[in-house]
Amino acid sequence: MFDRVALIGLGLIGSSIAWGIKANGLAKHVVGYARSAETRDKAMQLGFLNSVTDTAAKAAEGADLVILCAPVGVMEHLAKEVGPKMKAGAILSDVGSVKQSVIDSCGKHLPDDVHLIPAHPIAGTEHSGPEAGFASLFNKRWCIITPPEDANAAAVTKVQEFWAALGSDITIMSAEHHDRVLAVTSHLPHLIAYTIVGTADDLATVTKSEVIKYSASGFRDFTRIAASDPVMWRDIFLNNKEGVLELLSRFNADLSMLETAIKNEDGAALEAHFTRTRSIRRGIIEQGQDVDAPDFGRSKIDDTKS
Amino acid sequence: MFDRVALIGLGLIGSSIAWGIKANGLAKHVVGYARSAETRDKAMQLGFLNSVTDTAAKAAEGADLVILCAPVGVMEHLAKEVGPKMKAGAILSDVGSVKQSVIDSCGKHLPDDVHLIPAHPIAGTEHSGPEAGFASLFNKRWCIITPPEDANAAAVTKVQEFWAALGSDITIMSAEHHDRVLAVTSHLPHLIAYTIVGTADDLATVTKSEVIKYSASGFRDFTRIAASDPVMWRDIFLNNKEGVLELLSRFNADLSMLETAIKNEDGAALEAHFTRTRSIRRGIIEQGQDVDAPDFGRSKIDDTKS
Repeated sequence: MFDRVALIGLGLIGSSIAWGIKANGLAKHVVGYARSAETRDKAMQLGFLNSVTDTAAKAAEGADLVILCAPVGVMEHLAKEVGPKMKAGAILSDVGSVKQSVIDSCGKHLPDDVHLIPAHPIAGTEHSGPEAGFASLFNKRWCIITPPEDANAAAVTKVQEFWAALGSDITIMSAEHHDRVLAVTSHLPHLIAYTIVGTADDLATVTKSEVIKYSASGFRDFTRIAASDPVMWRDIFLNNKEGVLELLSRFNADLSMLETAIKNEDGAALEAHFTRTRSIRRGIIEQGQDVDAPDFGRSKIDDTKS
Repeated sequence: MFDRVALIGLGLIGSSIAWGIKANGLAKHVVGYARSAETRDKAMQLGFLNSVTDTAAKAAEGADLVILCAPVGVMEHLAKEVGPKMKAGAILSDVGSVKQSVIDSCGKHLPDDVHLIPAHPIAGTEHSGPEAGFASLFNKRWCIITPPEDANAAAVTKVQEFWAALGSDITIMSAEHHDRVLAVTSHLPHLIAYTIVGTADDLATVTKSEVIKYSASGFRDFTRIAASDPVMWRDIFLNNKEGVLELLSRFNADLSMLETAIKNEDGAALEAHFTRTRSIRRGIIEQGQDVDAPDFGRSKIDDTKS
């Protein structure tokens, strides 16, 4: 599919793309760049790359496809470095969780004959680093492609085929809409999870060890996403600031309504709200986006089940 | 261990206790009561009871141990009904998620020679009803026993042995402390999850089907607990009102701090907060309260993993 693919950033996503390319034979040569020599050595040792370079520019030279697999906050810096080195007709893509800011900040640094086709694979785990990657991370997961309005159609098709070959289901939408959708399905949930885990950590009357011990009663579901990569998430909130803040104000209004219902002991209002939220869960199960097994099918701790 | 155990309420917890008693031979006779005839029939059909009665009072007559397995809001009503029918020396226990209100509201309806020993098994799934129960639900899960200050020591020991026989690890603490601990580990997380799922359901710019489709990016972790039984949760918030409201005000302050950091584009504050929350997750994994497998080990949807 490609002669040379350059992966700029070799964490969970970069290493999983590399494994996926290898498993599916999608490129003759995969070159990688990571800021730290330790990560580059680790990557070569793990065996998912053909070569590494010590600058992003060197990796991008001669590549047909360059993918920025780095926190959203460094995308512009990287685009500025790799853009001028990219060959005519090549594609610059990325895997960032915010898309409008990538188009705005990276587009201006590219020569006219290089195509910017941003993408966002909705896949990941709470683990980070080059050791965390695996070939099927994207299998049966959504990948949202957000081409700029004037995007080259052939380049869009190539990126689409690439992600389909990695196993993803593809959707195409505008960057602006993507950022609204992800604010709801991902950014606000992470902000809330980070907040509540922090709140629990600060209490004087309940110890941290008690929180951990009794976490199975609800709390632990939040801790998984609150363990996600801090730098990646810092950048997401800074780059989808308006979307997140707008949604947060709605969330605050809804929470305040439930708070008032508790204060006023308005059981009917509470019950009505709690009943309504069940239907979304049903939709998620029906569409195969989650398992219906109790406790998410946490098999290892449920292996005592008769 | 007991001649006759009466289970008042035959939902997930009641039916699981019955299955557990049967599997471990803990009682000669298990009698059950449920408000609806349909549930009582279903229970007999499923085979986890020896008999059913059509009033709670009849079930309690002659029982050595009566366990209220009903929403916290009906505990007082039930205690009032069963208390006068209970035999001298018998134990009244419950499985409610709030404990101080059970002691306050139920204690006064019991004869002096009946022992009130409240307990709270920290176990459950997002499914409800008599079909949802299974014998090992309590296996390796915590059960918190909250005896009143003047509790009969032999009765406390009996309740402790009963839950240990169902597989639980036991902790004893005051009802007041229990309610503070659970406010953090369970009540606030549920309130937040119910809120965010409701917020997502109300948006005009992002459709419900988009929320469902892309829920794997964080949102779906919240939907599991927001699918919990509405009546049970209404009663928990009404009965741990002070504890939940106090904690909620701390959560609101913390969230407002992160909101300000986003507004001011204070990346350092965000990163520092997001780094701190990782350690709690590590504690939960280390203590075996969750699995370290990516995505909670959602095995059924991850079975494509190579």
